[in-house]
Amino acid sequence: MLSASDLAKPQIIEVLDLAHEMSDVNEREIKKLPTLRGKTVVNLFFEDSTRTRISFELAAKRLSADVINFAAKGSSVSKGESLKDTAQTLEAMGADAIVLRHGSSGSAYRLAHSGWVQSAVINAGDGSHEHPTQALLDAMTIRQALVTNPIGSDLSGKKVLIVGDISHSRVARSNLILLKALGATVATCGPATLVPRSLEPSGGIFYSLDKAIDEFAPDAVLMLRIQSERMEASFFPTEREYSRVWGMNSERLSRLGDSAIVLHPGPMNRGLEIDAASADSPKSKILDQVQNGVAVRMAVLFHLLAGDKGEKS
Amino acid sequence: MLSASDLAKPQIIEVLDLAHEMSDVNEREIKKLPTLRGKTVVNLFFEDSTRTRISFELAAKRLSADVINFAAKGSSVSKGESLKDTAQTLEAMGADAIVLRHGSSGSAYRLAHSGWVQSAVINAGDGSHEHPTQALLDAMTIRQALVTNPIGSDLSGKKVLIVGDISHSRVARSNLILLKALGATVATCGPATLVPRSLEPSGGIFYSLDKAIDEFAPDAVLMLRIQSERMEASFFPTEREYSRVWGMNSERLSRLGDSAIVLHPGPMNRGLEIDAASADSPKSKILDQVQNGVAVRMAVLFHLLAGDKGEKS
Amino acid sequence: MLSASDLAKPQIIEVLDLAHEMSDVNEREIKKLPTLRGKTVVNLFFEDSTRTRISFELAAKRLSADVINFAAKGSSVSKGESLKDTAQTLEAMGADAIVLRHGSSGSAYRLAHSGWVQSAVINAGDGSHEHPTQALLDAMTIRQALVTNPIGSDLSGKKVLIVGDISHSRVARSNLILLKALGATVATCGPATLVPRSLEPSGGIFYSLDKAIDEFAPDAVLMLRIQSERMEASFFPTEREYSRVWGMNSERLSRLGDSAIVLHPGPMNRGLEIDAASADSPKSKILDQVQNGVAVRMAVLFHLLAGDKGEKS
Repeated sequence: MLSASDLAKPQIIEVLDLAHEMSDVNEREIKKLPTLRGKTVVNLFFEDSTRTRISFELAAKRLSADVINFAAKGSSVSKGESLKDTAQTLEAMGADAIVLRHGSSGSAYRLAHSGWVQSAVINAGDGSHEHPTQALLDAMTIRQALVTNPIGSDLSGKKVLIVGDISHSRVARSNLILLKALGATVATCGPATLVPRSLEPSGGIFYSLDKAIDEFAPDAVLMLRIQSERMEASFFPTEREYSRVWGMNSERLSRLGDSAIVLHPGPMNRGLEIDAASADSPKSKILDQVQNGVAVRMAVLFHLLAGDKGEKS
Repeated sequence: MLSASDLAKPQIIEVLDLAHEMSDVNEREIKKLPTLRGKTVVNLFFEDSTRTRISFELAAKRLSADVINFAAKGSSVSKGESLKDTAQTLEAMGADAIVLRHGSSGSAYRLAHSGWVQSAVINAGDGSHEHPTQALLDAMTIRQALVTNPIGSDLSGKKVLIVGDISHSRVARSNLILLKALGATVATCGPATLVPRSLEPSGGIFYSLDKAIDEFAPDAVLMLRIQSERMEASFFPTEREYSRVWGMNSERLSRLGDSAIVLHPGPMNRGLEIDAASADSPKSKILDQVQNGVAVRMAVLFHLLAGDKGEKS
Repeated sequence: MLSASDLAKPQIIEVLDLAHEMSDVNEREIKKLPTLRGKTVVNLFFEDSTRTRISFELAAKRLSADVINFAAKGSSVSKGESLKDTAQTLEAMGADAIVLRHGSSGSAYRLAHSGWVQSAVINAGDGSHEHPTQALLDAMTIRQALVTNPIGSDLSGKKVLIVGDISHSRVARSNLILLKALGATVATCGPATLVPRSLEPSGGIFYSLDKAIDEFAPDAVLMLRIQSERMEASFFPTEREYSRVWGMNSERLSRLGDSAIVLHPGPMNRGLEIDAASADSPKSKILDQVQNGVAVRMAVLFHLLAGDKGEKS
């Protein structure tokens, strides 16, 4: 599970359907399956990301796997050969899956395809490249909210608008690939400095959120998190200006269709890319995303580790 | 479980009796009950407190719950709306109980009563406000040591002296409430700058430990930890002076009654608020407190999560 | 388990044989034994060592124990009485075994023999003194690679060369004791400033790796990690010089016997004490060491905690 492009449409639907089943497990009195008992999942995080780490940790524990958290940040570990030695060490200790978060784009691919390890490798975010499980949980949330009979369905006919710093966002990149594969029409929106033409979104590019809402009429709007370090790099003028032109607020929310939904990968900068009223409105599916995140990661771990196959994805 | 004042006397006794049973589990060859299998307990700690965190972690694991440690300190997480978003995220991931340690007084109450989450919220220390499970474990230790048939009993007729920085101590505050509810007479003792009149301890206020021992004749003496930052703020002259007037030592220990006991919430500053001989004497019940801490937290988690009720306290 | 010298030859062989069995568990589909269910193992680490910590954590989890990680570094905890209070607190919470990593030589011995705790104490590295489980895993790896029927066997007749900073290495010290007890002949090699005469290795002392290979003809070469802080202390001239005279490389590897092996405790400084070609060659048993590390620690925990005896080692 390295890139959203690893999966063809039938496989994506299979994973989403499995995640749907896992959701039911999470609703039970005893939120636990014995499936991965005796398996070891290692969270190898070269960058801090408490939410993603906990989501994977819970997913693995719900499937009864043993979980090891390895925070490489600040330690002697760094990229290149060190990633190789670290991963081989973890595999020698018995890791069946390595969940990798790394600052370098392509690191998960490199780890999985250099013959360094046989363990399953799951990309939990590599630089500004990809974050495929985030795209899966977004797709699951959109399908759940917008498709009447979600099981077995794709997203054909649905229009999704991604708003914010598209250029540096692995969430945007993975979503563009995955949602397109599921048949959705995807448009992007943001400051001209942060919305690349190269990604060629099927629904077009907008430089004003108002215009995007009126002309594209999205069924789902995915607000990206603004990274404050980008602010300093002056890709856009001020927080106030950003919020005025590209932020989600009550007025814009009211102009979306009745069934339209708003997503955000979290953690939110309330008052910047999204105001409090929108974040807490019934149209916001942000907590559904968090809940589906655990289910999707359970599905991915199940898929990779529970089979007879022992294959690497 | 937000404040020592949440519980009426019959409920306190019920929790202490349950903790007593949990103690027996901890004496077994296999220190484990299946009660909370499939439940998730999150330790959400905005302040470092390794001891309290480990005590809750072990309590949850002994009941077979899954435990997630979330150290918010230093991360982007801060108070106010962020606490809301963090807690809602953890709940969406499936947290059944949130154990909250936070620097702001009232944060646990706010988390539990703002309608933000449905999960059980346990206050593991909020600012200088309260630390109710600490008061429960102190009460359990006092009852165990001083009452012949502890099960079902209260602490009526027992005299407890709390010594040190009463003003800033959540331990003192929670103990004053809880021990009073159990029928004990509680007095406070410390430098005039650090012992507020407003708490109106039923046993009176003393500014000298010698005088308190002679006149109040306590059955249990609870020595508070001196926080070095308070020293710097010059609430009292020097360490030597503090130790001379308010520290527990062998001479003072010998003037306590034969069955009297000494408590300390830990970690101790040996040689400051308590000398080594007192800390290691048979009258010291400090390690009993630690042991009872796990049992009390098991009882609280059991009480909140094991019922059919799914209620929030 | 405090020092390699705690164990007589028959006991060492017993532990290695048990570790061999544990290795088989780690090859199973379900890598898990129920042996230590309800037991609590605490990793009490006063120094960072992610690898050693994870190895013990996995070993304990494979035996179904509950594991608590206590990183004392940077906290208020320090040596002396604080170690006592910390350990007694952990024991009062129910720790059955304390795995101690500490910067002070002799700290594990002190913890185990001062009457402070009854829990089993395992030395996971104390200053520049000892690291007995590392010596056990090295012995296991050497026996596995060089002895045809390893079970029940010692290492008599085998020649082991330890290369690097012998003076400051707990790995070297523990290996010298343990390998000698198993009947191996051990020589040391390194810069004169870093190879003490006092240890009196049975195979002699060499100041050049080339000479050691030619004259001693080792069956196993254990390369120690160079600590960069030692570099700064100018025990040897430059990295390049160190690598030229005492580093393992392809040329030297080719002059070792056909069945000879190379070991390294990790993490490696590739290009300094060992080059990449040697590290990745079939003669390198470095990943076997990692794998055997988990098995050896399972054996040690099993030995200390699973018996009816409750004895302390």
